[in-house]
Amino acid sequence: MAILITGMAGFIGSNLAEYFLKKNGYVFGIDNLSRGTDENLSRVSGNSKFRIAHADLNDIPLCRNILKEFNSVEPITEIWHMAANSDIPAGVKDPTIDLNDTFLSTFNVLQLMKEFNIKVISFASSSAIYGDLGDTKLIESSGPLFPISNYGAMKLASEAAVSAAVESFLEKAFIFRFPNVVGTPATHGVILDFINKLKVSRNNLSVLGNGSQQKSYLHVDELINAMIFIRENAVDRINAFNIGPNDTGVKVSFIAEQVVSAFSKNAGITYGKETRGWVGDVPKFKYSINKLSSLGWNAELTSSQAVMLAVSEIIEQEENK
Amino acid sequence: MAILITGMAGFIGSNLAEYFLKKNGYVFGIDNLSRGTDENLSRVSGNSKFRIAHADLNDIPLCRNILKEFNSVEPITEIWHMAANSDIPAGVKDPTIDLNDTFLSTFNVLQLMKEFNIKVISFASSSAIYGDLGDTKLIESSGPLFPISNYGAMKLASEAAVSAAVESFLEKAFIFRFPNVVGTPATHGVILDFINKLKVSRNNLSVLGNGSQQKSYLHVDELINAMIFIRENAVDRINAFNIGPNDTGVKVSFIAEQVVSAFSKNAGITYGKETRGWVGDVPKFKYSINKLSSLGWNAELTSSQAVMLAVSEIIEQEENK
Repeated sequence: MAILITGMAGFIGSNLAEYFLKKNGYVFGIDNLSRGTDENLSRVSGNSKFRIAHADLNDIPLCRNILKEFNSVEPITEIWHMAANSDIPAGVKDPTIDLNDTFLSTFNVLQLMKEFNIKVISFASSSAIYGDLGDTKLIESSGPLFPISNYGAMKLASEAAVSAAVESFLEKAFIFRFPNVVGTPATHGVILDFINKLKVSRNNLSVLGNGSQQKSYLHVDELINAMIFIRENAVDRINAFNIGPNDTGVKVSFIAEQVVSAFSKNAGITYGKETRGWVGDVPKFKYSINKLSSLGWNAELTSSQAVMLAVSEIIEQEENK
Repeated sequence: MAILITGMAGFIGSNLAEYFLKKNGYVFGIDNLSRGTDENLSRVSGNSKFRIAHADLNDIPLCRNILKEFNSVEPITEIWHMAANSDIPAGVKDPTIDLNDTFLSTFNVLQLMKEFNIKVISFASSSAIYGDLGDTKLIESSGPLFPISNYGAMKLASEAAVSAAVESFLEKAFIFRFPNVVGTPATHGVILDFINKLKVSRNNLSVLGNGSQQKSYLHVDELINAMIFIRENAVDRINAFNIGPNDTGVKVSFIAEQVVSAFSKNAGITYGKETRGWVGDVPKFKYSINKLSSLGWNAELTSSQAVMLAVSEIIEQEENK
């Protein structure tokens, strides 16, 4: 029995591959390398139970052939669908990026699952599906769902397609609503952005927005841990869970200070005036992880600890380039 | 100033066109005639302020040219996006039907609105976005949203895309969550299905499901009325409203009896055993119209009155064919 990871060369996918290979299972992957890299998989690429194919999920005939080939090595029994556009501002400028990479990729994965009789999906959704519900504490049944970014919209659209597929032909679906996730291999995100800015301008870090945006951050190792826990313990046909640390998060200004202090001690920090960093960025976030906590999983690191750990890991990654 | 109606040759679109022409406005339409017909527009097609183009919303270059032409006659200031697949079971068999006709049509309309600087959308959503929430009274903020049909999934996906567009470039969006709508020109739906079955087999009506499925029905004249009321009175940037009569609906068995008694008095009725008529059919439905009622609109007909009126109208339509 094998699992297939889409977006396997990306941040989450590569960490998942590593996890499942340690468990001694067959791990197959598909990635179009739009944001992922084979380098992200360098630690596992020699493993005999590991395969990766470079393909876009929007090329169904090609993916069909890849799945046939993988299946002939070892039957695929479930899919971990992690492929998505992760660059939210890019999706605001050009909505077809999220359409293709975030939504249609999901739609096509579901079509292929039906065709290949694969019954279980684990799907990387996002807290962005909730949009901006103001001071409401975000629980899994919160509504109305009016996402304010194309990214969030296409994640919600994907959840909807998964849900209809469960009614029609899937046995089980696990929907993980991610918070901001930090760690390596970093391919995007605020910490890497800040480091890249400081590489160009060593003495000043210019931050989009006024720095007061507050969000929860989870370290990728804990995210993997939480997803596996949900996969093994949740019993409904559709299992949607907020995943995150048990705190209200840290401000962008905190992250900026951590990056500056670790990477370019003498740099100043300048902030913008907007409460939102970009169109579609939710300024503040109250994210309940009670459902996950009741299932029995809790994060060990706080948002600030996760950020501090990731800052040092990502600086190391960038210095080793 | 003109309005553009997508899906104008369909059931709702043709009634809307008639309404706006009576108000003496310019009314432009696009329809791919997949389910609509030009015949549905026979009562308005001679009007000098009326234009229709036959095109699929998935052909963006063609639609772009059509909008340019329409705009040169009279500038389009808002779009009433009614185009969608209305055949739910067809979408269960082949999910790409709802993908293309229900979701991508919306996505493309939004792209065109951005391009042509059209700021207001009125969108035909559906109670199907709620999925099966059991005994929960369905209000506009109900969740979680796990639709059980591809149709519902692609309507929810469309709402999500509209929502992100409001954050990015639209001024206002009106999202109408339709109940079952009855009336003429009937192109689909349970009443027409029953009449068509009785045409083939005059002595017996065979009903999918056990007949106990209970749903609200609204007459199309009242639906148009409600949408216009919401368009004129709702003040938020995103305005989502359940639309329906103020009752808990009628059972399929009631509709079957009405059709038989009006169309083929001596026919017997046989029922299936399932509580759901097909995969994706929600058996029972508690649909709150309190938000709309608070805004000041209430249906005049009950579900049973709407069904009885529509049965006689649709029989007349079919007999005049």
